[in-house]
Amino acid sequence: MARSLFCIVILVLFSGCAHDPAPATANAPKVILIVGDGLDDQQITIARNYLVGAGGRLQLDEMPYRGVAQVQTVDADNPDMPVYVGDSASGGTAMATGVATSEGRIGVTADASEPLTNIMELSIAAGLRTGIVTTARVTDASPASFIAHMSSRYCQAPGDMVAYDPVVPQDSTDCSAEYVANGGPGSIVEQVAASNVDILLGGGADDFMEFAEGSESVRVLDAAMQNGFSVVRTPTELDQAGGSGKLLGLFATGHLPERLRGQDGRKAEYLERVDGKIVWPEPFACEDNPAFDGIPDLAGMTRAALARFSDDGFMLLVESASIDKAAHYWRPCGHIGEMGQLDDTLRVALEYADAHPETLVLVTADHGSSAQLIPQISGLAPQGFGPTGRFARIATPEGGIMGIGYATNDSTLWEEHSGVQIPVYASGPGVDVLPEYLLQTDIFRISAAHLGLADR
Amino acid sequence: MARSLFCIVILVLFSGCAHDPAPATANAPKVILIVGDGLDDQQITIARNYLVGAGGRLQLDEMPYRGVAQVQTVDADNPDMPVYVGDSASGGTAMATGVATSEGRIGVTADASEPLTNIMELSIAAGLRTGIVTTARVTDASPASFIAHMSSRYCQAPGDMVAYDPVVPQDSTDCSAEYVANGGPGSIVEQVAASNVDILLGGGADDFMEFAEGSESVRVLDAAMQNGFSVVRTPTELDQAGGSGKLLGLFATGHLPERLRGQDGRKAEYLERVDGKIVWPEPFACEDNPAFDGIPDLAGMTRAALARFSDDGFMLLVESASIDKAAHYWRPCGHIGEMGQLDDTLRVALEYADAHPETLVLVTADHGSSAQLIPQISGLAPQGFGPTGRFARIATPEGGIMGIGYATNDSTLWEEHSGVQIPVYASGPGVDVLPEYLLQTDIFRISAAHLGLADR
Repeated sequence: MARSLFCIVILVLFSGCAHDPAPATANAPKVILIVGDGLDDQQITIARNYLVGAGGRLQLDEMPYRGVAQVQTVDADNPDMPVYVGDSASGGTAMATGVATSEGRIGVTADASEPLTNIMELSIAAGLRTGIVTTARVTDASPASFIAHMSSRYCQAPGDMVAYDPVVPQDSTDCSAEYVANGGPGSIVEQVAASNVDILLGGGADDFMEFAEGSESVRVLDAAMQNGFSVVRTPTELDQAGGSGKLLGLFATGHLPERLRGQDGRKAEYLERVDGKIVWPEPFACEDNPAFDGIPDLAGMTRAALARFSDDGFMLLVESASIDKAAHYWRPCGHIGEMGQLDDTLRVALEYADAHPETLVLVTADHGSSAQLIPQISGLAPQGFGPTGRFARIATPEGGIMGIGYATNDSTLWEEHSGVQIPVYASGPGVDVLPEYLLQTDIFRISAAHLGLADR
Repeated sequence: MARSLFCIVILVLFSGCAHDPAPATANAPKVILIVGDGLDDQQITIARNYLVGAGGRLQLDEMPYRGVAQVQTVDADNPDMPVYVGDSASGGTAMATGVATSEGRIGVTADASEPLTNIMELSIAAGLRTGIVTTARVTDASPASFIAHMSSRYCQAPGDMVAYDPVVPQDSTDCSAEYVANGGPGSIVEQVAASNVDILLGGGADDFMEFAEGSESVRVLDAAMQNGFSVVRTPTELDQAGGSGKLLGLFATGHLPERLRGQDGRKAEYLERVDGKIVWPEPFACEDNPAFDGIPDLAGMTRAALARFSDDGFMLLVESASIDKAAHYWRPCGHIGEMGQLDDTLRVALEYADAHPETLVLVTADHGSSAQLIPQISGLAPQGFGPTGRFARIATPEGGIMGIGYATNDSTLWEEHSGVQIPVYASGPGVDVLPEYLLQTDIFRISAAHLGLADR
């Protein structure tokens, strides 16, 4: 029954296909897709408890639609075989192209690395405006999946195309077949620079400072400017950037810093034992991260992007990237602060949608992350037992203490992802008939259908 | 906006309050509340991947409504202060009574242990039929929360009322103030035996074999029979139990066994290292648990309960208890099999609701559990790193391998719960206007409103 309902919904949503899209008009369809990298129910609960209290409500909690999506990743050698935990590349590619691929692939198929058309390319071809706003490098896996095509997510800049990684040798790259000189598209940052996306805001300036492939004088940033991008580097420059032409904002050399950090920079750690007894870590609160000074917030960048679109139809990807990054590196306040950024950004998107009811607002994730909300002191603490992995006790503003564990990996390098089904929130036309259970590739279909791109 | 929508929804649902409930008629309102103990998005995804494949759909996935609920637990000494991770007692009491309480409390307030009226009592007072079906002991915390009032979940039988627990001394009990002789309600099993719930099906026969408080000849089971319960002990006896009178089914001495187990009884284990290198565990599949032979399944028990209600109005709690229990004890196939039982039971509930459209079907949880779907081999395996806790690699029928970690606690006793927000699925009258975000206590309000009990 629900399956046939789903078919009807998709048919209804795709009924826009029959007519040509009418992009640059006041009522042209608009999609704001907010991707929380690593956004899952653990992250949402942890953020709610800290930011608004256990009895409070996030902006997310006010959304009229909340469903779930199965993440989709496949085996590189056998694309018929699911892999149950994916990454930002496979998750991003599923949402951007509607096709499941293998880990690390950016907008290409799992086995042959054949390029897959993404929703930004479809939108540009249809005369819609496009934008990508992220708190990561603009060349990072999630944004890259919406703009580029590359067999490895790590081939971000010309200098990464053939690179030996001494720490994680299996992540060494050889994308030499994808050099422009070899008939390929060139590194991810060069593809970004050559793209026709209207607005790109985020981090990763150092990638743009590399010389373009085969050149010892032309930097990738020069190529971007030759391709029509105005470049801004500070929030003030972003505010002052007039007009509606192509805009590239690079606000940090790498990823943008996180908004919050643990008091005195504290993060989760392994439990300490003295004379065989656990020394339970002192709780800590979150504080403003000094490194965030002078960095535009995600809500502000999103507002700037929306202002430049005016009333035109558009496809805008907004990525709150550091939920996952903070969870990888045991920074609970990092992911709490980034969840706050996502929630603030959603508020901006909904305000825009209030004034432009033809706007579909979607919030979802590429995959789940490692953080787990567990007891702040184990019930077995008197017996000397506690979490096996890194652990933090977070003092919440309402006076409680939250225990957060990270225990997927015993390395000093990073935590893993989770393959948990991910939340999907939506607001706007048609969401009252969206089915409650989706596949990650449906995000592409729903967006494309709303924009009238489905036949392309 | 959504908050006011919620108020409207509750008002609409509660509009039944104005008129008296009309219980024993063909169109009398009916609620089937299916509680998955420990049901969370991790558990659902793990079960889907195993039972129907990553591209398949559970019965849960077909539900027309899917929201989330914040779990609610408070500090025993300071009920204004949230505790971010609860248990089956606090979660069960929130759903049964609409009031948040502290861990371990069964149908009583957090601080003073004052009794709270539960939805079964309200239903009985209104002339509705009632039932509790569980794969746990019928005296376990979740079912007990819907029937009994006790300061500690561990005071299940007369012999537990004052008991020293040598393994976990802090779980020792002193419920002596709650002896009948002291003016209290007596142990949980004695309250169950004395109750007017129509149908009780599950495990825990050994509790009923204890002598009633102060007696050396009358067993609790005798008291139950004196209170009008017919007793059945096998699936055949359950099938043959005619009529519609009070029925107590006890199908195991303790909790009912789980339907599935790991091949050769395997479960998750700590990674083994030989010469400093990880020996990744061989994947294993699930197999029928021989201990489940002769045990009625949850769907069958639910079908039997529904048949006895005929067309009467009723409140039925169905608990799939061993999702949590299996996660506590590192048995991935245990929770996969129990999720299968929950999904089969949902199918039975929906079939009943198809024939009785006045039926509200709800599926939710008391709290989240420890199991986490993580990579089946860490990306850092070549560097010698892997999960910090117990870990299993599950060979799925579709040919994949799922990694499942349990890492909340380094004891040999059990894993912790998670405080993650929990899923709520619904089908039936009014679910199209249910808000997407709920508090756990709203489960009581939604159920009571549907049954016309809201003013009581």
